[in-house]
Amino acid sequence: MVKPWRTLATRTVAKTPIFQLDAHRRVSEHSGREGEFVTLSCTDWVNVVAITPADEVVLIEQFRHGTARSTLEIPGGMVDPGDRDPAVAAARELREETGYVAKTLVHLGTVEPNPAIMGNLCHTFLAEGAERTAEVELDAHEEIEVLTVPAGELEALVRAGRIRHAMVISALHFWELHRRG
Amino acid sequence: MVKPWRTLATRTVAKTPIFQLDAHRRVSEHSGREGEFVTLSCTDWVNVVAITPADEVVLIEQFRHGTARSTLEIPGGMVDPGDRDPAVAAARELREETGYVAKTLVHLGTVEPNPAIMGNLCHTFLAEGAERTAEVELDAHEEIEVLTVPAGELEALVRAGRIRHAMVISALHFWELHRRG
Repeated sequence: MVKPWRTLATRTVAKTPIFQLDAHRRVSEHSGREGEFVTLSCTDWVNVVAITPADEVVLIEQFRHGTARSTLEIPGGMVDPGDRDPAVAAARELREETGYVAKTLVHLGTVEPNPAIMGNLCHTFLAEGAERTAEVELDAHEEIEVLTVPAGELEALVRAGRIRHAMVISALHFWELHRRG
Repeated sequence: MVKPWRTLATRTVAKTPIFQLDAHRRVSEHSGREGEFVTLSCTDWVNVVAITPADEVVLIEQFRHGTARSTLEIPGGMVDPGDRDPAVAAARELREETGYVAKTLVHLGTVEPNPAIMGNLCHTFLAEGAERTAEVELDAHEEIEVLTVPAGELEALVRAGRIRHAMVISALHFWELHRRG
């Protein structure tokens, strides 16, 4: 069993609208060694594999500021403090980003987006019977294009590197495990 | 096609041993809207699905400072500035973290770990014929336990949430696509 590091002190280094940067002074219960470790605190996230009645998957394309280029993804976003359940956030983000509303919503799996530096989780949901029945409602800086692709074509997009967002590929893996039963 | 945001100015907000925090003033070529976006700059990463001659996968368990708990992962680490190729980093990280050295190393796929806030890539490699023939060499703050599990048991570890690091699950997805051919 790996022994934990105990936190001696934490100070906040910076705050941004999306995350807070914290520096933790920690001591290893294994070696007694001390160090300072910088982490990002932010809310949990959700993403959604949304399937239409025609067995198409709802994708979005948007400019991403980390890579400074556009990325092909599944819809998703932040769990708000008021959300009683990540499923509420999943349904909302799907609707707001794409206008799609699903008949059913099932939790497929949860990942740690980056346990080395972030403490949050990303929950993946499967939204079946998704139809475009609502208005898109984007946040101030969101510019999103919505598209659908036949479910059977997703694998080729991953193999070609067109879909290469780690949390999206994790979501597709969970979906595959789900279908395998 | 999604239009990009053009960078007007960039300033560095904070630096840590692992990443640099930058704030970018950008203008949307779609809407003309301006905003400030904070990103993390850091080196590319690698991770490695290493398989022994007995068809076992090499895993590591280590305390992770983002989540402040221990995580079950595949080996991996940072691409150093002097690495002429990510494969060099993959072989080194596998050897240093676990003592395993592989007969072959094949690139399986590449993800963007978090395109919303990070610009780097994580490259996944398959290392076959991996045997424990070298000494483990850990960095100052690394405390790692090495274990092997039969390849056929990995899926159960993912389903049970014991493996839930997004980049590890992405790596396992690439490995599955690779085996599927």
